[in-house]
Amino acid sequence: MSDLPKRVTINEDGPREGIQIEKTRVPTADKIALIDALSQTGLAEIQTVSFVSPKKVPQWNDAEDVVAGLTLRPGVRYTSLYLNARGLDRAIATGRLSIEGGISLSASSAFLSRNMDMTPERQRETRREMIALFKANNVPITKGSVNAAFGCNFQGDIPLDQLLATLEDVFALAAEADVTLETIGLSDTMGWATPGQVTRTVGTIRERYPNQSLSLHLHDTRGMAIANAQAGLEMGVSDFDTSVGGLGGCPFAAHKGAAGNLCTEDFVFLCEEAGIETGIDFNALIEASVLAERIVGHPLPGSVRKGGSLHTIRAGLGQ
Amino acid sequence: MSDLPKRVTINEDGPREGIQIEKTRVPTADKIALIDALSQTGLAEIQTVSFVSPKKVPQWNDAEDVVAGLTLRPGVRYTSLYLNARGLDRAIATGRLSIEGGISLSASSAFLSRNMDMTPERQRETRREMIALFKANNVPITKGSVNAAFGCNFQGDIPLDQLLATLEDVFALAAEADVTLETIGLSDTMGWATPGQVTRTVGTIRERYPNQSLSLHLHDTRGMAIANAQAGLEMGVSDFDTSVGGLGGCPFAAHKGAAGNLCTEDFVFLCEEAGIETGIDFNALIEASVLAERIVGHPLPGSVRKGGSLHTIRAGLGQ
Repeated sequence: MSDLPKRVTINEDGPREGIQIEKTRVPTADKIALIDALSQTGLAEIQTVSFVSPKKVPQWNDAEDVVAGLTLRPGVRYTSLYLNARGLDRAIATGRLSIEGGISLSASSAFLSRNMDMTPERQRETRREMIALFKANNVPITKGSVNAAFGCNFQGDIPLDQLLATLEDVFALAAEADVTLETIGLSDTMGWATPGQVTRTVGTIRERYPNQSLSLHLHDTRGMAIANAQAGLEMGVSDFDTSVGGLGGCPFAAHKGAAGNLCTEDFVFLCEEAGIETGIDFNALIEASVLAERIVGHPLPGSVRKGGSLHTIRAGLGQ
Repeated sequence: MSDLPKRVTINEDGPREGIQIEKTRVPTADKIALIDALSQTGLAEIQTVSFVSPKKVPQWNDAEDVVAGLTLRPGVRYTSLYLNARGLDRAIATGRLSIEGGISLSASSAFLSRNMDMTPERQRETRREMIALFKANNVPITKGSVNAAFGCNFQGDIPLDQLLATLEDVFALAAEADVTLETIGLSDTMGWATPGQVTRTVGTIRERYPNQSLSLHLHDTRGMAIANAQAGLEMGVSDFDTSVGGLGGCPFAAHKGAAGNLCTEDFVFLCEEAGIETGIDFNALIEASVLAERIVGHPLPGSVRKGGSLHTIRAGLGQ
């Protein structure tokens, strides 16, 4: 318990990652309303839209319109997703987003081959191209990430050694380009992680990379996200990706109906009850979660929205 | 991590506790089918029905018929709920149930007063009457429990001292009646517990009561049940109440739409991935969860049923 951080940074991924998987078209105005509502909760970072091919992700064919419609709030970093030169150009052209670079590799070669028709060698090549692109555009590269870090529906368990080897590849790519990584991101892309595994993995990585901070991206596919987040907190992790209401899913996973990311408000509740600062206005966040559920038109998995805020109960009791 | 138990005992509460809160009448045959399905999963204990007043809990006005219809499976303990002499008589009269006594008190006097119109003194009196009744019927009394152990919607936070004082009252009642309690049950009746609180509470109680084992009953009202269960496991707790599919809710809580108990299959997944034996056939349990969802006619919250079994994925990959 002694390693619990005093404060956590929460990167809200709900809009970009959550909405893209919705089957029903979400109107542009609703996407803007959700991001604007989230920007008023105290969240420091919101991943807004995806600049990928509209053929692959039709839900984001209005990415530019959404970004243009946002009421930008000072102090909030508005980020986006881009996977190639065209996407990066589109993001930069908006003139309204925080443009950040990163280096990410998949720990599962079966995932790469099945979903992207790519070998690990080819993946490293595409990353070299992106790194060159970031440098040519003066985009800072600070985060190195491993996807499918804890397991993969196409490859099975990912042993810790395999994760560590992938992480070495990430750092080798950074070194080649004279880039110093500040943060290591681990993504449980398909919801394989369990708390003991998070504890062991984070423990090993923080010993091996004492100069980098760690960031966790935890999917709730099998209901373990909140327990995995707690395991991360207990190992001192202070940087988490989350998704309001638990929006999302995993388009690459081998099953339907899977839950999305770690739910933002459930995670904020966990932190606040443990005395960990989040900087978030809990009631405003609950309102944003209610809005998210209305916008997508079906129940979202987050629990504390339904269970009720203890803040409100305590306040009603004069506590 | 070193205190993880080698094996856990799971008490399935889904039928009794879960079905009673359903608004739509569940047919007797469906109740029987669910309990019979659960009895084939390897579960050692199933709480089947409630022998309370049909006026208060109309859903269980067929308790006797359900018990009479069960295909009793050797090795499974079939328990039930009874809160007074009439209920106990009804349970005994079936001749088919495991009859067990217990002593439980609420840590929250506001909960008692608001929901049962009862003072703590009156509650102790009713417990003395039940203890006398158990003894008169040669019913073993082995478990002492505290409800609302971690917090209460009507009283707010329950400080550890208040929980400990209530537990002392439980042990005093046992001592008066010359009863030796083997197990201490802590119930998070309204879903207030968080992992750090579970760790601190279990740590204190197991030091103070080294001769008793601990049992946790965790509601998922605010999405913390699985993280709280993990905290309990790490403190060596090996006895948990759960509910298939996450069936249930809390009829006494101040809000609607709250989730039910810790979900049986999500908890089994957590344990098995950590190498903790459950004795449960995971795929049979998933089938029982699918059946539970069909019977109640609305989505149940459990995650791993939707996310997919890693057993199945690994088997498909030849692992």
